[in-house]
Amino acid sequence: MAVLLAQILAGEGQRVGLLDVDVCGPSIPHLLGVEDQPVLDSQWGWQPVVSPLGKIKTLSVGSLLSSQSQAVVWKGPRKTALIRRMIKDTLWGRLDTLVVDTPPGTSDEHLTIVRLLATTRPSGAVILTSPQRLAAGVVSREIRFCQKMNVPVLGIIENMSGFCCPCCSEVSEVFPGGAGAHLAEKYRVPLLGAMPLDLGLAEAGVSCGWRDSPVAQVVRDVVAKIKEKL
Amino acid sequence: MAVLLAQILAGEGQRVGLLDVDVCGPSIPHLLGVEDQPVLDSQWGWQPVVSPLGKIKTLSVGSLLSSQSQAVVWKGPRKTALIRRMIKDTLWGRLDTLVVDTPPGTSDEHLTIVRLLATTRPSGAVILTSPQRLAAGVVSREIRFCQKMNVPVLGIIENMSGFCCPCCSEVSEVFPGGAGAHLAEKYRVPLLGAMPLDLGLAEAGVSCGWRDSPVAQVVRDVVAKIKEKL
Repeated sequence: MAVLLAQILAGEGQRVGLLDVDVCGPSIPHLLGVEDQPVLDSQWGWQPVVSPLGKIKTLSVGSLLSSQSQAVVWKGPRKTALIRRMIKDTLWGRLDTLVVDTPPGTSDEHLTIVRLLATTRPSGAVILTSPQRLAAGVVSREIRFCQKMNVPVLGIIENMSGFCCPCCSEVSEVFPGGAGAHLAEKYRVPLLGAMPLDLGLAEAGVSCGWRDSPVAQVVRDVVAKIKEKL
Repeated sequence: MAVLLAQILAGEGQRVGLLDVDVCGPSIPHLLGVEDQPVLDSQWGWQPVVSPLGKIKTLSVGSLLSSQSQAVVWKGPRKTALIRRMIKDTLWGRLDTLVVDTPPGTSDEHLTIVRLLATTRPSGAVILTSPQRLAAGVVSREIRFCQKMNVPVLGIIENMSGFCCPCCSEVSEVFPGGAGAHLAEKYRVPLLGAMPLDLGLAEAGVSCGWRDSPVAQVVRDVVAKIKEKL
């Protein structure tokens, strides 16, 4: 979702940065097709990698590690120090929008990024959930965390919301539960949309072709709603 | 998978403990149907909650928090202190098997639990992956982490491996990629099995009814292979 949001905003002519603070599971470089591009370190700081599509400036621990499978244990203080460098010691240049992709949960990464960006007053958080009731606990804590830290919650997106059988076109709830609607009602925040699973999107990565996929219209609607709130 | 493994072992008469060290996303209490049971604190330590089915002794941050949606930020050192108490200051009693459910990644939780259990020489780690190639990076680091910390890798299980359409029975790869087989070959560890998505299992939780679900036989085969390795 972070990549799709960044790509749509970039397609409209915005200067977009995409920061991946998921230190243990960085996925942005793969999704943007910049897996093999290293981050250059200059005397003024790190130089973000620029994606071929949309010229999105991006920084991820996935581009900072020499090997993708390096067995690094990321303890809290080390995560905090890394994210600080990613914000403070990086040549982001002028940006219209900085999209930050966080891991699930409410831990070091979230506290660090919210504290570092506090003076710039971030526009808000878009909360992703899967449909299972089991997800509601984690996501509730994320919403309460945003409220406590004065980060406006722009809305909730339910991901993996149904699967369209390529054989008979029957749409099944792969993960039942309706957690998106339930959480939106409970915390009085908008439900921005429900994105079905999309084989084409999963196969292609998002660097090409997603514009023709069945979820494309859903994504465009969601992004339009996010932009309304900004 | 941790709950299914614990339930099968308990069904065979073993005394089983199930420790949930996923501090930010605890799901075990819900899955075992003990969500409303608090952990009792005595002068000798915490008393694990006992599940109605299988008499599994379980401890999870989900049972320790007063409200499920409490906005607690879990920084690294706080996670470490909690997990230490969960092992050292808890009245586990005599157990035949202690199953530990960890979050994804290689962070404070993993380092803490491996260090705390080092003297007891844990039998090994069962690594879960989803089928997408995107998952391979995180899972690779988990395997390398185990190797570095001298925890034997018992094998890999591919989860969410296909979806059987309830309308036409066509099995589709919801998430393509074959990451399970790919990782098993790359790191020369056994592929213990591939578990399809199962609506029945997702709806029911696992506290009842899973024994009749289509994945039941897959789960039994996987557990049999794990037991062989112990």
